Amino acid sequence: MPIDIVLDAMGSDKAPEPEIRGAILACRQLDVRVHLVGPEDLLRPKLREALKATARPGFSGGQGFSGKKARLPIFMVQASEWISMEDKAAQAVRSKRDSTMRVGLKMVREGRAAGFLTAGNTGAAMATAKMVLGSLAGVDRPALTAMLPTVTGQPCVLLDVGANVDCDPENLVQFAVMGHMYAKNVLHVASPRVGLLSIGEEDSKGNSLTRDTLPLLRGLGLNFIGNVEGRDLFNGRVDVVVCDGFVGNVALKTSEGLAKLVSSSLRESLKSTVTSQVGAMLSQRAFKAFKSRLDYSEYGGAPLLGVRGVCVVGHGSSNERAVMNGIRVAAEFAEASVNAGIEAKLAAR
Amino acid sequence: MPIDIVLDAMGSDKAPEPEIRGAILACRQLDVRVHLVGPEDLLRPKLREALKATARPGFSGGQGFSGKKARLPIFMVQASEWISMEDKAAQAVRSKRDSTMRVGLKMVREGRAAGFLTAGNTGAAMATAKMVLGSLAGVDRPALTAMLPTVTGQPCVLLDVGANVDCDPENLVQFAVMGHMYAKNVLHVASPRVGLLSIGEEDSKGNSLTRDTLPLLRGLGLNFIGNVEGRDLFNGRVDVVVCDGFVGNVALKTSEGLAKLVSSSLRESLKSTVTSQVGAMLSQRAFKAFKSRLDYSEYGGAPLLGVRGVCVVGHGSSNERAVMNGIRVAAEFAEASVNAGIEAKLAAR
Repeated sequence: MPIDIVLDAMGSDKAPEPEIRGAILACRQLDVRVHLVGPEDLLRPKLREALKATARPGFSGGQGFSGKKARLPIFMVQASEWISMEDKAAQAVRSKRDSTMRVGLKMVREGRAAGFLTAGNTGAAMATAKMVLGSLAGVDRPALTAMLPTVTGQPCVLLDVGANVDCDPENLVQFAVMGHMYAKNVLHVASPRVGLLSIGEEDSKGNSLTRDTLPLLRGLGLNFIGNVEGRDLFNGRVDVVVCDGFVGNVALKTSEGLAKLVSSSLRESLKSTVTSQVGAMLSQRAFKAFKSRLDYSEYGGAPLLGVRGVCVVGHGSSNERAVMNGIRVAAEFAEASVNAGIEAKLAAR
Repeated sequence: MPIDIVLDAMGSDKAPEPEIRGAILACRQLDVRVHLVGPEDLLRPKLREALKATARPGFSGGQGFSGKKARLPIFMVQASEWISMEDKAAQAVRSKRDSTMRVGLKMVREGRAAGFLTAGNTGAAMATAKMVLGSLAGVDRPALTAMLPTVTGQPCVLLDVGANVDCDPENLVQFAVMGHMYAKNVLHVASPRVGLLSIGEEDSKGNSLTRDTLPLLRGLGLNFIGNVEGRDLFNGRVDVVVCDGFVGNVALKTSEGLAKLVSSSLRESLKSTVTSQVGAMLSQRAFKAFKSRLDYSEYGGAPLLGVRGVCVVGHGSSNERAVMNGIRVAAEFAEASVNAGIEAKLAAR
């Protein structure tokens, strides 16, 4: 049974091309049906064009949108407005009543789709999802969740990475339950190790928020391993890390910045000698493997946990591969019973 | 005129070897005199041994500590105790009255040395420095400062990275003045761009601390560029970034963790094919250049800004090269009139 995913066609910095191409990729590789939300008169010719450009002889999906047989399961959903990166989130959510985000998320609320993906304005996506879908029972604040690469290959779930800048201990406890359920049901970690992001392992280390949160997390019945540090996000020591959205956002963007520095330094260093240019050519394949391991586009997006439905927010600079992976993430999230698990665990406290 | 630097010989994880070898390197390459603080009976034979091992024919410094001519300017200062990484900072500072840290910092207070370096327990070093040296006029809380690598090659000054976990806006204002003076006088940036670490560039983005701090930083008469994000730490957009010590510590350790992941991924990816093994050998030189650019040991340590004197804290895993660079940092810090500048600027507000 294919899973229905609604895709905001007007979200990314270069929309709608990455979305359209990502939808095509997803329909060719995954068992999904993609509902592209946006202005139909703009999207329809672009979709036709992209299908032609990506058509491969002998590949049934390549017959094109208007071909007679083996159509790709891509559908159009009309929305006349969209929220840009420059729009103020709160204002745009109120004023743009026919936005791609609102129309798409309504389809999730009404059960016409199992999940929603946007690579657009994160603040607007969160606000719209909270408004349209509402929060799960027992959840005060939904949280944005990032998957970080680790040495083991198993991603580390970090939340919140920006939905809630000022948090109290109860928020962090709810984040721990949400992250635990996601790691268990979507990433298939049998007993996810949960950590509290702090500045030292000892209980005494941290700020007033982490010190107040620590005993609550201990009493939760999860596999809680105590305080963890920034370096533990990548070393495979922990599966789920909770923190307030300000700290999580700084950690996430710091890693993105360093990853960029690494790429550019590496490129420059390799260019600097003729010997190493030859070396670089020979080790090209290895570099690709390395880059794909650190590349956010392999992870596809940040699930918004705690809302009554499935909403995934991708990076604004998403390319077609990132969009496809975002669709995969939304589909896997929708298939796993994460939300029911969160409500049950929070009710049982 | 050589500059006198006191070096805690018992600080690093592998003390005293990296300290002794680092002192030898520094005396051979820099215009410094190094005062090694620690138990003399333990240090003296190890120094003699290290001098023999590192002696190079034809190199005057290689004659050895006990040689007749061209002695290296390394001196012993007796201290019977030292604070370990496992010691609780506050307690150790009180109970170990003859610790290497206390003895060394006293030499700075008494003007017998221009600066102090330790690769030991950061908390203990900060507490001892505050107690022995005291704070500069106008400074409520000294701050630990990290130098991060950027695409331009000019480091980005980040503070606080762990001295103060809960800060108020006035603390951050003082950090901005301290970071400005350090970038200007030690790193020779004519008009350092100062930024406030937040989660978006707009004034409205951030938590209650950053929103309250923003107008104060605007009124300070520095080259303040507003909110910056985690990624800006590495892209050369800003020279000095201020934040509370919790957030700064998370950002610093997150970068360290990612840098480690990068190294290990790269190594693994390169090993994975024979072709790339050949490639890796050829591009070895380039990798070295790349690594040294990201390597903390090139930066040598974190200056503690705001105390009445010069105190630099190195990484516990410092090798001899990191120790030498730490001595260089302490000497450069001591030569520049950073502290007088901080007091003048804070008094003029």
